[in-house]
Amino acid sequence: MEKREEGVNEEGAAAAAAVEAAGEAEEAEVNPWEVSGKIDYDKLIDKFGCQRLDQSLIDRVQRLTARPPHVFLRRGVFFAHRDFNEILDAYERGDKFYLYTGRGPSSEALHLGHLIPFMFTKYLQDAFKVPLVIQLTDDEKCMWKSLSVEESQRLARENAKDIIACGFDVTRTFIFSDFDYVGGAFYKNMVRVAKCVTYNKVVGIFGFTGEDHIGKVSFPPVQAVPSFPSSFPHLFNGKDHLRCLIPCAIDQDPYFRMTRDVAPRIGYHKPALIESSFFPALQGDTGKMSASDPNSAIYVTDSAKDIKDKINRYAFTGGQDTKEKQRLYGANLEVDIPVKYLSFFLDDDDELEHIKTEYGSGRMLTFDVKKRLIEILVEIVERHRRARAAVTDEMVDAFMAVRPLPSMFS
Amino acid sequence: MEKREEGVNEEGAAAAAAVEAAGEAEEAEVNPWEVSGKIDYDKLIDKFGCQRLDQSLIDRVQRLTARPPHVFLRRGVFFAHRDFNEILDAYERGDKFYLYTGRGPSSEALHLGHLIPFMFTKYLQDAFKVPLVIQLTDDEKCMWKSLSVEESQRLARENAKDIIACGFDVTRTFIFSDFDYVGGAFYKNMVRVAKCVTYNKVVGIFGFTGEDHIGKVSFPPVQAVPSFPSSFPHLFNGKDHLRCLIPCAIDQDPYFRMTRDVAPRIGYHKPALIESSFFPALQGDTGKMSASDPNSAIYVTDSAKDIKDKINRYAFTGGQDTKEKQRLYGANLEVDIPVKYLSFFLDDDDELEHIKTEYGSGRMLTFDVKKRLIEILVEIVERHRRARAAVTDEMVDAFMAVRPLPSMFS
Repeated sequence: MEKREEGVNEEGAAAAAAVEAAGEAEEAEVNPWEVSGKIDYDKLIDKFGCQRLDQSLIDRVQRLTARPPHVFLRRGVFFAHRDFNEILDAYERGDKFYLYTGRGPSSEALHLGHLIPFMFTKYLQDAFKVPLVIQLTDDEKCMWKSLSVEESQRLARENAKDIIACGFDVTRTFIFSDFDYVGGAFYKNMVRVAKCVTYNKVVGIFGFTGEDHIGKVSFPPVQAVPSFPSSFPHLFNGKDHLRCLIPCAIDQDPYFRMTRDVAPRIGYHKPALIESSFFPALQGDTGKMSASDPNSAIYVTDSAKDIKDKINRYAFTGGQDTKEKQRLYGANLEVDIPVKYLSFFLDDDDELEHIKTEYGSGRMLTFDVKKRLIEILVEIVERHRRARAAVTDEMVDAFMAVRPLPSMFS
Repeated sequence: MEKREEGVNEEGAAAAAAVEAAGEAEEAEVNPWEVSGKIDYDKLIDKFGCQRLDQSLIDRVQRLTARPPHVFLRRGVFFAHRDFNEILDAYERGDKFYLYTGRGPSSEALHLGHLIPFMFTKYLQDAFKVPLVIQLTDDEKCMWKSLSVEESQRLARENAKDIIACGFDVTRTFIFSDFDYVGGAFYKNMVRVAKCVTYNKVVGIFGFTGEDHIGKVSFPPVQAVPSFPSSFPHLFNGKDHLRCLIPCAIDQDPYFRMTRDVAPRIGYHKPALIESSFFPALQGDTGKMSASDPNSAIYVTDSAKDIKDKINRYAFTGGQDTKEKQRLYGANLEVDIPVKYLSFFLDDDDELEHIKTEYGSGRMLTFDVKKRLIEILVEIVERHRRARAAVTDEMVDAFMAVRPLPSMFS
C-alpha cells in the first residue's frame, strides 16, 4: 500500500498551475502511486464504481455499535464504500468480520494524513470488537522506491511503532511485514490470485508499461490476499468464510477492484471497503501531501513551534488579506485549509459549526481560527509522540509475532 | 522448472508432418514449456550463447574427481555449459560449490527422460562431494497446468520419492517445494531479482503475451533465486560467495540467462550451468516425450512386459524392413531410437561400439538391438521401482526438512 505520501509531483504541480492560470478545470489523477489535481469525489465514485456512504449507513453504524459515529464518518472523510452494508447485515445477524489495512513504509516520519486510516481503523476495532491485520508492504517500497531490502524492513518497523502508538489492542491485532510473512498459506493465495489476472488486466487497472519491472506486475496479489482469511491460518483457521472489511484511502481502490473480481473465482468472499478522501496539503486541497516538501504537511515529529509556524505561514486560507476586508466579506470556507483541518480533528460538532459561521461571516479572523487549530494539532501530535515514545521493541515484536489471537472476537 | 514432459503438441506434430512431407527443414522450438522440431544442438548453442562442453573439460573432470566421467558426459548427453570451467577452477583451488536442480511436478509417473538430470546430478554430488538443493516448482505447475494448489503439492511429494530413489545422500541434499519454502530470505531475493527485470525483458526471453496471467510473469524470479546461496540461510549462512552449478536440460537456459544477467547487479555470483540435450521420444527425436501419449516414453512405473511391448512396437528404427534388406544395407544409426537409448543407458563403451558397428553394417538385426535395450531398461526400471518402494514418508520429510547439512562439504 502506497499510503498517501506521493502527493503532487513536480509535473503535477506545474500542470496544476498552468490549468489554474487558464481558469480551466483540471483532470485529477488518482491511483495507488499518484494523487494529483482537484479531485471531484462524486466523479471518482462513478468512475471507480463504488457506492456513496450515506447517512442511513452512518445511522446504522451508530445503532449497531451503540456509540457515536466517528468524526471521520460524521464529516464525510470516509465517504465511499463497497458492500459495507453487507458487513453490517452480517454483523447484525451475529456474524463477525475482520479488518485489514496497511501501510507502505517509505519514510521514517509520518504526517497527519498517514494517521487517518489508522485512527479510523482503531475506532472500528473498538466499536465492533473485531480482529485486525495490518500489512506493511516493505516489499512494495523496496521495489517502487529503490530502497534496499534492509532499509525497507527498518522503515516498516519504525512505522509499526507509529501505528501501535495509535492505540491498537495487541490481543486483537496482527501487524506483519511482507518480507517476513510472505510464504506458506499466504503465498498459496498469491498464486491462486495471480492465475486469475492477465497482464493486460493489470495494465488496465494500474497503468504499468513494458519498461516497468516485473516486481510491479507481481505485487498486486500480495496486497490482494490479506483480504482472504485463509492467508492467516494462525488467526482464522477453519474460518474461511469470515468477511473482511478494508478501511483505506480511495486511491487503493484499484487493488481491491482486482481482488473483488478474483475472489469468487477462487471460492472466497469479496472484501468490503470503506474508503476515505485525502487529507489536504497545507497549501490547498489539490492533492496528497508530498514527502519531498516538509512544509506541505504536519509531521508527527513536528514540535509545537514547528506546527505553529507551519500553520501560520503555509496553511492556505480562504480569509481576506486584511482585518477590515475580513469583517466585510468573510472567509471562503470552501478553500480554507484551517477549517478543513478542523473538520478532521475538532470532534465538537457545535464548536466547529460556530467557527464556520463566525469565520464565514467575517466576525472571526483567520488568526483566531489558526490559533484554535494549532492548539488541537499540538495536542494530537504531543499525545502521539508520548504514545510512540512508550512503544518498546518488545511491543513491536508482540504485535508482529505470528500467533493466535485467542479472544479476538470478544 | 518444466522438466521435459511437454513434448510435441498437436499443432507441432501436424506442422512437423507437413514439413516432413514437403522435405524441408523444420524450425525447432526450444523454451521451458515447449520443445519441438528437429533440434540442431550446435545452432542452439550459438542462439543461446552458451559454450560447448568439449573433451578437455571432460578430461579435467576425470582428473579432478579421480573417477571415470559419467556416461552422460562421455556420450555428449550433457553437451553445453556456462562457466563450468570456472567451477572447476574454483574446485581446483580448494573452493567448494553447490548444485541446484529441480523439477516441475505436473505428473505422477516419471519417464526415463525425467530421471536423466537426477542421475547426472547424483554423479556430480558423489564425485565432487558437494551439497545439493532440489526445487520442486509446484507453484509453477499450479499456474501453468491449472492444477489446484493441493494437487500440485501432492504431485511434488510423489515426485520427491522418485528423486530420492535416484540415491541422493540425505546428509547433503535439501529438497523443497516452492509452496512450502517461498518466504523470508528466499522471497527477499525474489524481490531483488524482480526489481532488475522489466516486463519487456521477460517477454523477450520467455515470449509471454498480454493475455498470459501475471503468475507467469512473476515466476521467473522464483526459479532464479535458488542460484544464490543466501536463499538458503539454513545451509549457507555467511557463505554468500559460494558458487552454484546447475545441471539441467537446455530448455531451462532462458531462466538462467536472466539470472546471470541480474546476479552481478545485486552482488551475487552468476550461476554456472551444465546442460543436456533431450531424451528422445520412442517415435523419434524431434521433440521431448509427451505426457499425453503414454506410448511415447518408458515410464518408471512400466512393467517389464510394458517395456518390451513399447520398444518392440513403437521404437523408431533405422534398420531395414526385412532381414534380407538389413543384411544388405545395414541400419541408419542416426535416426535409430534403440541405438540412441543404448547410448544413454549402456555404460560399456566397447559393447556400444560393437553394436553400432554390427548393426550399422547389417550384421546385427533390429530385433537383437531391441532385445539388448529391453534388458537394460527393464533392469533400470526394476531397480528404480525397488528403490522408490523403499522411500517412506519419513524419508521424504527428512529430505524436505529445513535444516542445516552439517557435513555437506565432506
